[in-house]
Amino acid sequence: MYKELSKRVSKLIKSLQIKKYRKQEQLFFVEGAKNTSEILTNGYEVQLVVGTASFLKGIKDLLENHPRCEIFVADEQQLSALGTFATNNAGIAVARQNISANITLAQDEFALVLDDVRDPGNLGTIIRIADWYGIKKIIASPNTADFYNPKVLNASMGSFARVEFQYTDLVPYLQHQSLPVYGALLEGDNIYHENFDQGGFIIMGNESVGISEAVKPLISHKIHIPRVGGAESLNVAIATAVICDNIRRPR
Amino acid sequence: MYKELSKRVSKLIKSLQIKKYRKQEQLFFVEGAKNTSEILTNGYEVQLVVGTASFLKGIKDLLENHPRCEIFVADEQQLSALGTFATNNAGIAVARQNISANITLAQDEFALVLDDVRDPGNLGTIIRIADWYGIKKIIASPNTADFYNPKVLNASMGSFARVEFQYTDLVPYLQHQSLPVYGALLEGDNIYHENFDQGGFIIMGNESVGISEAVKPLISHKIHIPRVGGAESLNVAIATAVICDNIRRPR
Repeated sequence: MYKELSKRVSKLIKSLQIKKYRKQEQLFFVEGAKNTSEILTNGYEVQLVVGTASFLKGIKDLLENHPRCEIFVADEQQLSALGTFATNNAGIAVARQNISANITLAQDEFALVLDDVRDPGNLGTIIRIADWYGIKKIIASPNTADFYNPKVLNASMGSFARVEFQYTDLVPYLQHQSLPVYGALLEGDNIYHENFDQGGFIIMGNESVGISEAVKPLISHKIHIPRVGGAESLNVAIATAVICDNIRRPR
Repeated sequence: MYKELSKRVSKLIKSLQIKKYRKQEQLFFVEGAKNTSEILTNGYEVQLVVGTASFLKGIKDLLENHPRCEIFVADEQQLSALGTFATNNAGIAVARQNISANITLAQDEFALVLDDVRDPGNLGTIIRIADWYGIKKIIASPNTADFYNPKVLNASMGSFARVEFQYTDLVPYLQHQSLPVYGALLEGDNIYHENFDQGGFIIMGNESVGISEAVKPLISHKIHIPRVGGAESLNVAIATAVICDNIRRPR
């Protein structure tokens, strides 16, 4: 009942490794058992799934919720050749992009704001951290890494499917907000003494230059993570995790 | 006064990209301005430095503390060809390995214990986190990534030079300790309620399987990081940062 993998489908998936074609088609792909299952579970419009016969059998119930999704059978060698994984014994799915246009926060809600986080591994790790700490909204500057880069999706370990993500110019976006805007700066207040009781936006800066000069004036609450030892700084994903943990710990 | 880069030196540095030769020679190399300066500052026996004329001029005072260190001039192209960086406009240094043989803790002191952390990027990031939080001692299982892998040293952002590092079989090592042994397990106590007032060992597990079955019985204090959202787990470096932050925050 399932179709054999065709040249058209192979060509489509391979083209989606490149940002230009992802943008043009407004599609992306995920690979491996975890991300393929996540995308079938979390409200994405999945256009096609390529999988091994045994993997397709295991996700039969999930596929039934996607009646318009084309399904193709392939072996492990074919799957590895299509995607970025060295080995893939499960599947690949192609779905429609789902970038948000206008994220707003409820009172007491938190969002992350990414000011030019360029490394796909960092972005994927940050998405996973946000999901762990129940932060469901992420706003990113246009130069932040592409949410649908396979490295981002893979590093997110499936968490990409549980967050809303928006690209926008941060200055006008933040100018129109009434909740606190937190940013880590050297001269900021000790994070251990912050209340974090009103929700708000947590700005995380670029790997090399930190928060940009244009965005700094929009920070209403300057914070810093106290240092005990000798390292000059923390990686942006590490700092995100420490801040999220401090937001969520009881006071 | 400085020598021209020779074939012998080029060959030596290139060989040190491979673990087998690092082990055989008991040497390693660092690259870039930051790590080269760090290694000249933190008690390493530096055997040779290759640098651009302007970089060598800038570290003249540091080099004077290493009278037996050979110094070579090279241009940026030569430096990039020798190391792992795409570009290197500063230098490369070769030094003697300095792995500890018998790390012991003072009362109230903390150490990290790495149970098969395999990814060099994770290991380097963990070293940077330890250094940030003033944890100066790391004990690792023999299968943990090589401390002197260039990816580890680069990800540590210079912090490698400020920690003591030992490889040893963890079971006999931990059996002889009297301080608490902390380990993150699903059934552990909420980390926000721990006192961490006696110092001790913090075990961090392998990326895929976590803390090994052989090491688990040696945990005296089981802990866990509370989860708010949907992610199944945190990356080992992220979890290390959250635990270290909870150790150091005032109670």
